[in-house]
Amino acid sequence: MMKKDVLKLIKERRSVRKFKKKKITMGSVRKILEAGRWAPSGLNNQPWKFMVLQKELKDRLSRYTHYSQVITSADKVILVFLDKKNIYNYEKDLLSIGACIQNMLIFLHSINYGACWLGEILNQRDKINKMLGIKRHLQLEAVIALGEPVAYKRKGERESLKKLILNPP
Amino acid sequence: MMKKDVLKLIKERRSVRKFKKKKITMGSVRKILEAGRWAPSGLNNQPWKFMVLQKELKDRLSRYTHYSQVITSADKVILVFLDKKNIYNYEKDLLSIGACIQNMLIFLHSINYGACWLGEILNQRDKINKMLGIKRHLQLEAVIALGEPVAYKRKGERESLKKLILNPP
Repeated sequence: MMKKDVLKLIKERRSVRKFKKKKITMGSVRKILEAGRWAPSGLNNQPWKFMVLQKELKDRLSRYTHYSQVITSADKVILVFLDKKNIYNYEKDLLSIGACIQNMLIFLHSINYGACWLGEILNQRDKINKMLGIKRHLQLEAVIALGEPVAYKRKGERESLKKLILNPP
Repeated sequence: MMKKDVLKLIKERRSVRKFKKKKITMGSVRKILEAGRWAPSGLNNQPWKFMVLQKELKDRLSRYTHYSQVITSADKVILVFLDKKNIYNYEKDLLSIGACIQNMLIFLHSINYGACWLGEILNQRDKINKMLGIKRHLQLEAVIALGEPVAYKRKGERESLKKLILNPP
């Protein structure tokens, strides 16, 4: 692999909110979850659990967010839960879940899929658990809407490194 | 880029706790921070700040953890802070910081560096801020020890996907 490739991938990845009407195979979804599964976690406790929704159930989920069109447009969604029965340290577990999500986002971008990491929907996490029959110890942390991207503009700039480094050399 | 490459990178990455006595240029460190900088965050609030320590100051930091040898062995360390002046939602900000850390870990692995994401050191975060003269609104979330890995065994297995998917197809 060329050295610059991964940095390029990371820099060009953006949220995709509109998708082509094309199927993503469960085989591809499994590979994406596989990327998530290999994230690091404190004491390797792996506090994540996943759920994959499609079709009617996916569209029912879309009612719990203001961004329902992202979910209805997506072919599938991945729900990422923190398994509170598997807690090591709440703060560090959240960091790990973030690493797990990012593994999936980078990988799926590398195979030309697009995704939107939805957060606002967490406001309705209790109702969503109930609707899905998911127990309370599984706390919804993210919904990743997934599909083949339609052409999109790369928005979302970032602060310069200069502003982010507390002790610039 | 070959499609399978990023998944391979993600799966083969492991914590590195012992490093060669070789310098990592600040140019390389900047590229690693660049990878972190491009992580996604809620409303693109980019709640992270970074600090890079080397030499004596790095070794002084090593006193705040039981895993001091990882830090003294590393050529440099990156400190990742949550900037509480830039809070959007504490839980989601922690997820973003996790994504930011993982971007750095994947990228640095792709250019053949190794790293250890240290968490236990957070127990001493207040003392560390004081030692470094860092204000309280900057909350230490991770220390990443960084260097050229000596040969290492890849330990750290993961649960099977079967156990992680709540609704296996």
